[in-house]
This record gives sequence, C-alpha cells and structure tokens, in this order.
Amino acid sequence: MTGVSSATDARLHEVVTASRWLAATSLAERATILREIAVDLDERAAEIVAVAAEESLLPIDRLRGEQTRTVNQLRLYADVIEEGSWLDASITHAKPDASPPVQDHRRANVPLGPVIVFAASNFPLAFGIVGTDTASALAAGCAVVAKGHPGHPRLAVLLAGIVQASLARQRVPDAAFTLLDADEAVAVLGDARITAGSFTGSIGGGTALKRIAESREVPIPFYAEMGSVNPVIVTAAAWRNRRTEILSGLVDSMTVSNGQLCTSPGVLFVPDVALSPEELAGFTRDTSAGSLLTDSIADGFRAGVCGLSETAGVEAAGALVVVEGRSAQPVLWVTDASIVEASPDALEERFGPSSVVVRYDSQSQVLRVLAGMDGQLTASIFAEPEEEIGPLVQVLASKAGRVLLNAWPTGVAVSWSMHHGGPWPASSSAQFGSVGAEAIDRFTRAVTYQNFADDLLPLPLREDNPLRIPRRIDGVVTLVEEPVCRSTMPRSETSGFASEMGSPLSR
Amino acid sequence: MTGVSSATDARLHEVVTASRWLAATSLAERATILREIAVDLDERAAEIVAVAAEESLLPIDRLRGEQTRTVNQLRLYADVIEEGSWLDASITHAKPDASPPVQDHRRANVPLGPVIVFAASNFPLAFGIVGTDTASALAAGCAVVAKGHPGHPRLAVLLAGIVQASLARQRVPDAAFTLLDADEAVAVLGDARITAGSFTGSIGGGTALKRIAESREVPIPFYAEMGSVNPVIVTAAAWRNRRTEILSGLVDSMTVSNGQLCTSPGVLFVPDVALSPEELAGFTRDTSAGSLLTDSIADGFRAGVCGLSETAGVEAAGALVVVEGRSAQPVLWVTDASIVEASPDALEERFGPSSVVVRYDSQSQVLRVLAGMDGQLTASIFAEPEEEIGPLVQVLASKAGRVLLNAWPTGVAVSWSMHHGGPWPASSSAQFGSVGAEAIDRFTRAVTYQNFADDLLPLPLREDNPLRIPRRIDGVVTLVEEPVCRSTMPRSETSGFASEMGSPLSR
Repeated sequence: MTGVSSATDARLHEVVTASRWLAATSLAERATILREIAVDLDERAAEIVAVAAEESLLPIDRLRGEQTRTVNQLRLYADVIEEGSWLDASITHAKPDASPPVQDHRRANVPLGPVIVFAASNFPLAFGIVGTDTASALAAGCAVVAKGHPGHPRLAVLLAGIVQASLARQRVPDAAFTLLDADEAVAVLGDARITAGSFTGSIGGGTALKRIAESREVPIPFYAEMGSVNPVIVTAAAWRNRRTEILSGLVDSMTVSNGQLCTSPGVLFVPDVALSPEELAGFTRDTSAGSLLTDSIADGFRAGVCGLSETAGVEAAGALVVVEGRSAQPVLWVTDASIVEASPDALEERFGPSSVVVRYDSQSQVLRVLAGMDGQLTASIFAEPEEEIGPLVQVLASKAGRVLLNAWPTGVAVSWSMHHGGPWPASSSAQFGSVGAEAIDRFTRAVTYQNFADDLLPLPLREDNPLRIPRRIDGVVTLVEEPVCRSTMPRSETSGFASEMGSPLSR
Repeated sequence: MTGVSSATDARLHEVVTASRWLAATSLAERATILREIAVDLDERAAEIVAVAAEESLLPIDRLRGEQTRTVNQLRLYADVIEEGSWLDASITHAKPDASPPVQDHRRANVPLGPVIVFAASNFPLAFGIVGTDTASALAAGCAVVAKGHPGHPRLAVLLAGIVQASLARQRVPDAAFTLLDADEAVAVLGDARITAGSFTGSIGGGTALKRIAESREVPIPFYAEMGSVNPVIVTAAAWRNRRTEILSGLVDSMTVSNGQLCTSPGVLFVPDVALSPEELAGFTRDTSAGSLLTDSIADGFRAGVCGLSETAGVEAAGALVVVEGRSAQPVLWVTDASIVEASPDALEERFGPSSVVVRYDSQSQVLRVLAGMDGQLTASIFAEPEEEIGPLVQVLASKAGRVLLNAWPTGVAVSWSMHHGGPWPASSSAQFGSVGAEAIDRFTRAVTYQNFADDLLPLPLREDNPLRIPRRIDGVVTLVEEPVCRSTMPRSETSGFASEMGSPLSR
C-alpha cells in the first residue's frame, strides 16, 4: 500500500476532525447543512448543467432533471436524518429481579467516520461527487473525501467549489468535504483514517477497489454498485396481447441516456422461437446514434458489439452501423435460449444502447436460463393477470434487488422504499443499497450503552426521547406520543423524488 | 478452492431445497419450528449438560445456565420473527401525478440462503452448533450447515441428533440443519451454494475464513466475532472511593468461566502510578486454578503468560504459578501507560484468566493509549457522578460496540437492544452483531417489488398488512392499527434472557 502525500496526509488529519465535528451535530443541524448545500447547488444549476453537458455529452434536458434529482436527494436525506429511524434506537430497561438480572442497556447507531466516494461516469450529478453516496454519508455524520470521475474533471472542481463555499457560509469545517487528487484515491482508500468506501462503476473497477479495502490492516466496508443486464421476461399471454407495445417499450427503455444506465434492459426473453431479426429491426429503424460518456466507454461498447456479432447463434437485427468517436447506434440482437445456455457470455453487460432478445420455447427453459444468471439490480416481468407467475417472481427475487411487473427498469425512485442494489456482481454487498433512505445504513454501526445515567446517554437514547424519534422500547416499536395515534395520520412522503422510464432522470 | 466430496455435494443440493422451503414458511410456522427445537433441547437438558461438561470441563452450573440461555435465545428469535420489524417492510404508493410519476414500490427483506456456521469453543451451547448464529439464521429463513468445534465433538453429534429429530417430528426437511464433517468445512465455505458464513473464535481463524469467503468467485458476507481485551477505565474519584471494590470486581469478572469469555476484562486502567504488585496480589491470592477448554487454549494461555512475564516493565502480581495440562491459575499484571504506549503487544488478548492493570498519571495519557487501541467488543468506565467523563465516553464509543458505566463487561443480555460486535478486529463487520435481535439482520437482503398487483406481492407488503407487522408507509413508521395507541401499551420484552457478571452464563 503506497502512502499518501504529505499534503493529503495533513488534509486527512483535518478530515478526521471534521468527521468528529459532523458526528456531534444535532440531527436538525446536519439536516440544515444538507438543505443549504441543496440551495447553493440550485442557485448555480445553469452553470452546473452546462459544464456537465460539455463534458458528458448528455442532453441538457436530461442533465436539468438530474440536477433536480441531486438536490432533491440531498433534501430527502435531510428528512431521513430528522425522522430518526436510521438511528435504530432501542431501549431495554433494567430488570433487577430477573434471573440473572438485566441492567439497563440501550442501542443506537453512530457514524463510521471518514468515507471515500468514487464518483460514477454515467450520472455526473446524482452519482457524482455530491451525489447519493456523498449525501448519505454526510447524513450519517461522516466526512467525505471524493474522487471525481475522469470523464468530467471540470464539473468536479465546480461542484466541489460550490460545496466548499456552502460549508464556509454555514461555518462547517471545510474538511467535511474534500475533492481528492485522483492519483491519490487508491492510497487514500488504504489509509487507516478512512472507515468506508463507495463506488459506482464497472465490475472490474469495483472488484479491484473492494480487494484493497478488504486487504488493509484494518479492513473496511466497501460498497460497489457494479454491473447488471436487468433481464426482462415476457410471458406467453403478454406476448400475444402486447408484442408491439413491449418491443417499442424495450427500445425506449434501452435508449434512455443512450443505454448508459445500470438499470438498462440488456436482455429480453420472449416466448416466440420464430421471432425474426427483420421484425426486430423495425423497432430500431427510427433511432439515431447518440453520444457516449467517454472515449473508453465508446471503445468498450464497440468491442462488445464486435464480440456479439462474432458469437455463433447471435444475429444483429438489421445492418450493424459502426459509428466513430463517442457515438453509438442502438442495436438489438436476437438469439435462442439454448444458445445463451451454452454461451452465457452473450448475456454480459454491454454498457451502451444494446439489448439481446432471447427466444425461449417453454417456461421451464427460461427459468433454467434465469437460474444460471448472475445477480442483478433489477428483473422485470411482462405478464397478464390471469397467468400464474409465482415461480417466475420467486426466481427473479432470488437474483435481483428489484422486481418489476409490467414496467421497465430504467428510472429509480429516490424514496423510502427503493432498493438499488442486488446479489453479486450487481452490488458488492447485497445487503446494502445506494439510492434513497436505505443508503445511509452503509455508513453507521451500532453502540450499546449499558447502565448509563440518563444525562450521560446520547440524545437518541434518553428516556424522555428529546429527539422525538421512533424507538423500540422493551421490544416494542414505539412512536412519539401524540394526542392521537401517528398511525392514523400518515405524513406525505417528503422529497420522494422519482424518475421513471423515459424521464430525463431515468437510471 | 478444493471442491466438496460427492456426499457433501449431494447434501448441499438438499440444503438449497430446504433453504427455499424455510424461506417460504410463514412467520408463525418458522417461529414454531424454533420454539419446538427449544422444547426438544430442554427435554434432553441433563444429557446435553453432562456431555458438554465432560468435553469442555466447564462447571455444571455454568452449563445449566448456558443451556437455559440457548433455548431462551431460540425463543427470542421466534418472537423476533413474528414481530416482523426485521423484514423492514416499506411501502411507497404510486404518485401518478408527480413529475416524473412514481410507480407503487415496496421493499422487504428476504433470506440470503444457506449459511455456514463455525461454532465457538467457549460457549459449547449458546455459541455452538445450535447457538445464536444457527438460531438467527434459521429465523431469517436460511438453512444452516454447521461445523462443530473440535473441543466438543460428542456434544455436536448429540445436539445435531436432537435437532434432526425435532425437524423430523415437525415434518421440516432435514437438510434445514446439517452437521458438517469438519474436514470439509472450508470447502463448503467456498461452495457456490453457500450464501453467508459466521464464526466465533480467534482473530487468526476468523481472518483466514473471511479471506476465503471474500475471494470466492461470488464473494459472500462472513461474520467473524473475534478478539477483544475489553478495557476498563477507572477515574480518579472512583479509584479514591471504590479502589477495593473495583479490584475485587475485576478479579471476579476476569475469572468468570476462567477468563474464557470474549468480553473478559483484559486491561484495567487505574489513576495510580504507585499501585504495587503486592497490593494486587492480595486480590488473586484466594483464587484457584481452573480448567481451560482445550489443550490448545491451555498452550496458548501459557505462551501468553510467558510472553508477558518477559516483557520489560510488566510485572506479575505475586508469584507466577505454572499449571500443567488444561489448568490455569488466574494472574494479574501491573505496568505503566508509558510502557504500553511503547509495547502495545502487552495489551493483546490472552484468552484465559489474565488481566493487565495499567497505571496512568493523567486523563490525557489514558485517552492517548485508548485512541491507539484496536476495536473492542466492550469498554467500561468506573466513575463518580460528579466527574466529567464525556470525552472518555466518546473515545470508548469510537472503539467499542458496547460501553458500560460502573459495570463489568462479562454478561451479555440476549435482548432487543444488545449489540455484540465492534470495530475490527472485535468483529469482521462492525455493522453487525451476533447476539439478540440484531443478529438476524446478518442473513437477509432487501428486494423492492415495483408496480405489483396486491395479490402477487409477498405477504409483508400487501396493502391490508395480513401479518400485522410494523411497516413504513409513504415514509411514516406505521404500527398495526388498534383501538388505542400501541405506544401506550408496552408489551414486555419477551425472552429477554440475560446474563450478568458472576452468573453462569456470563460471556
């Protein structure tokens, strides 16, 4: 493990102090910090979007939406902090007469400490250096050191400057957020002061960083959100009734952001061994070439297309258009379930606008192919109400973090109920997700306080519940006492910003 | 990775099927399975305790208590399953008019799949093959394959037979629980069908197994509960007022189970640079040699004592008694904070009845030593109410999973609020714990169901809440509707079995 430079060493010293400072803020203070960063990002939205567009070549409208998602995501985490369930507070009162006696003990979550964030290429804002990883780590009370993606270096400097100015205006220690020198990121991941890491990107990159995190003298959790082909399965009746609508929907979904979404549908299973490439070609005929995010993504996409075109039994639908530079033409492929059973590589992720249509002849065949697939972020079913899809749902839930019915996977709501993660290699830790309320859990751990006087306890655990948060008391979930039951007064889900297929924020 | 034998291969095939079967049981059914195993273990208690005593040399009374703890722990998990919070159910209703629109989506936890459990040496029952790991994995809906500890092979066979008979009586697939051939355990950990592992034991053993779990083609979570010296800090006023009581308490706590507890207090910091070995020797004078669990633990203990006796600046309190075979005489050591700052090895875990008393001259000195220590399961403070201990609590909470005030760490309540884990190397994953309600979370992951018809959803997520579990609805924690608030009717904490210092179940 190479050490860090002396400048970075000095900075990490400040980061540790800033992280302690953040951990000691009240829930309300920390929520305010996030909301104010959102305000400051909002004010510079036009400039942010313009720079992001220049570097990523993503359309302005899509980036405007992503900017909105990014600030709303900060606001959701502010709400999550204040709501307090993330603290998982639990109180067990003393039972001196029990045999053996039980002392009073109370558990609550605390922040892990400084977190390193590796920003994504495909969401320069929402999964960038001030994206969901940074927002959820700050929400947990952890200082963040962030590595920008090489695809948008000017954007990283702009965003970091806005965050720094926001922290200064709010009198928050500036080391609560640091934009790292990219060359030092790996050394920083190995530094003993860093307590967790997160990443969005390729399987190769995520796996390599995870190994570094695990082989440190003190291993740390590393959350990598990696690859997925997001299979979509069409049943017999749905194919009979909605064939055209489904194929159009596939092309719409796979071309959102030119296919550069980790939830892009890369495989569609159809119950039709006679489906022809010519028919499929009709659905991509009117699409046009779109831009890819970086030269290396463009090279990778061309290599993937080239590899598929040379795979026996896999046919391109229509003429293959090879585009130069950072452009890519959407392409559909057609093959048979028997082929992909023999050559599972055909179902690997090709990041960009490419999707493989797999013809199957029986439900047992498609179940067999699915059972052999890697873990996925999402899996979708198109089916009619009268069909028995229980076994299909079950196998898909065993493979994916999100299962959709008659819906396309692109578009991830940033909410309290979203799970964005999945079994390996979709995520490095299937037990955690990176979008919405759940993401904060990646950066906390529990501490139990035993036999403490009330005034020495942290606020979430004091008897009178000064933070007014939901807690478990002697085994029972207990809401804040109010004149009437909280359960009869649902609060609207705050900042439940969401994006669906076809929207500029689809993912 | 060596493969498994053909017999084990065939068994793992059945284990996968049994795990699916378990995952499909209702909460009530699964709770019943655990409660019935508890009944069947209870019926054979005398025989279990006798065999455990023969093999472990632990006292009968201690093992009787541990037997009770073990069955109560199964019953607590049965309650936890039925209470349903572990499912973390969350519902976000559709918002078709939002921009962009939000589809209905609902998240709940599902079991990971087959789990391998490596049983501990020091709790033949409570952390054995039917201990907390097995109980919490079964509770989550995961089949278990367990490796018994070599220190008590006959006990493992006896316990496995009782569990098998219980499963047969209940018509549960027998592969829901398997006692592994110890020689095959490592190969099984590497097998693709295993989805998680857990372990209680040494840092070396836990680290080696964790590396195997992480370097699989599909890495899996591995939860190792490893070493800890459980520092205890005495403040100036507590030392003035309670010196004798505290030193007696130390000897009582460090000799519970002859020091073979992962929460045994291995280091006591006292604010008294003049404390003499002679005074300390008075507190161990009346203790007698006790048995150790295995030959290798006895060898390790003697090597540890030998190493400490040769460490410059560390003095034994009283004459060192070297005992043969599996016997060990409790021993206290005395040294100075300045010595352990220079030779931190003096503070490493010596599994057995040994504790180091460290004299310090200022709070800043003890804070410095503590800041340099490894992660711990517990840390304790003895202080008087008038003292300012905030900074001390803060540094201890940053190092340990449980912080105690005026209490000894041995004794871990099996409850809803316990956290038994801590930063590396106390646990391999500081985010999880192995005792009480929290332990079940190690064996689940989330799945979000999007745009599903109600009758196709899993029961925890159906609109009418048929399981009557606490859920989050549109961002708000919502309890089961009842005529009056649940928050005004606390239910007593079921099966909150606990053990405290001095009880036979101390840990």
